[in-house]
Amino acid sequence: MRVGELSKKSGVPVATIKYYLREGLLPAGVLTSPNQAHYDDEHLRRLRLVRALMDVGGLSIAAVREVLAAVDTREGSLHKKLGAVQEAISQPAAVELDPLAVEDVQAFFARQGEAECVDVTESNVTHMLASALSSARSVGHDHFRELLDPYLEGLKIIARADVEYIARFGSRDDIIEAMVVGTLVGDTVLKAVRRLAHAQVSREVIGDVPES
Amino acid sequence: MRVGELSKKSGVPVATIKYYLREGLLPAGVLTSPNQAHYDDEHLRRLRLVRALMDVGGLSIAAVREVLAAVDTREGSLHKKLGAVQEAISQPAAVELDPLAVEDVQAFFARQGEAECVDVTESNVTHMLASALSSARSVGHDHFRELLDPYLEGLKIIARADVEYIARFGSRDDIIEAMVVGTLVGDTVLKAVRRLAHAQVSREVIGDVPES
Repeated sequence: MRVGELSKKSGVPVATIKYYLREGLLPAGVLTSPNQAHYDDEHLRRLRLVRALMDVGGLSIAAVREVLAAVDTREGSLHKKLGAVQEAISQPAAVELDPLAVEDVQAFFARQGEAECVDVTESNVTHMLASALSSARSVGHDHFRELLDPYLEGLKIIARADVEYIARFGSRDDIIEAMVVGTLVGDTVLKAVRRLAHAQVSREVIGDVPES
Repeated sequence: MRVGELSKKSGVPVATIKYYLREGLLPAGVLTSPNQAHYDDEHLRRLRLVRALMDVGGLSIAAVREVLAAVDTREGSLHKKLGAVQEAISQPAAVELDPLAVEDVQAFFARQGEAECVDVTESNVTHMLASALSSARSVGHDHFRELLDPYLEGLKIIARADVEYIARFGSRDDIIEAMVVGTLVGDTVLKAVRRLAHAQVSREVIGDVPES
């Protein structure tokens, strides 16, 4: 298909497609004449993924490039590839790490029987966790670490639903795309539904009594 | 205490405190001489809350003002006040709402036996949820809505832990501060722990087999 049809099928304006091409986020089409390139379904799929990363995930061009590099790696198991993509879509905040928060993360790993977490900054995910606990400690909430275990308990139910959602897709590329969209959209859905659950539970526990 | 001691006790630089005073995020101290103001523990507490909102939550000055207005309202039950503060710390993304995503949210409320949700934009929380589902639909993930029920199931465990965490604080102000910090730090902790749970569950379901 030509760029106009690619735009129509994807809902992405031609100017944006050309921008993605210039930035190397979309591979060039096959030239059929000096001024005309031909695109196929692989371009359409890639375009959808780029759009999901930028619009849904709010990722920068540099972060999108990192994700695509992980997606395009030809080696490793699907599990490892999903792990690499997950790293790319998990950027920790630029917060100074509190050594006690690092210990909180390490103790959490030990309680879960996970491999020892010597350097939390080796993975973006553990780095993100240590950053958040450092922020909590910086405003006097040292005990926030006690929520890690009940959080994991609830998140296992959620993660199982997530993995079942992506496992229904057939091809490796579709699975990876579903994982990216599901992780990023899911972050926001979780934020919102958590607040709805707060309202429900807080009505039960604190009660809706008039101010004394 | 003088501004220097307030800075020392809070860990917030004097220049930053003066900035907060100018922006009206911190009430003025009591003047003890034309050039000297006196601050008390209420200032210290407020300073900690402002810092949590800006540093932990990444809120703008305008959003911080909105939260403080909700905190300072003298009327309503604690439950209602917590709800108002929660609204202020929940800003939906500027995404065009898909009418089908709005229906997804309304159907979710109906399934939960919650009050009918006629206008999702009336609350920031339901608006956030409808925005996220609209984003998912825009990249072809209409079925993401099916995750709402298992998400709520897991989040009820998490919300119960959250509410128990804030209920251990004594005064209304401490409860509100803990709710703000817990909600904002919790958002990031959930993101990180969800990814750890993904890795665990995906190892079980998809398996770590070599590429064929």
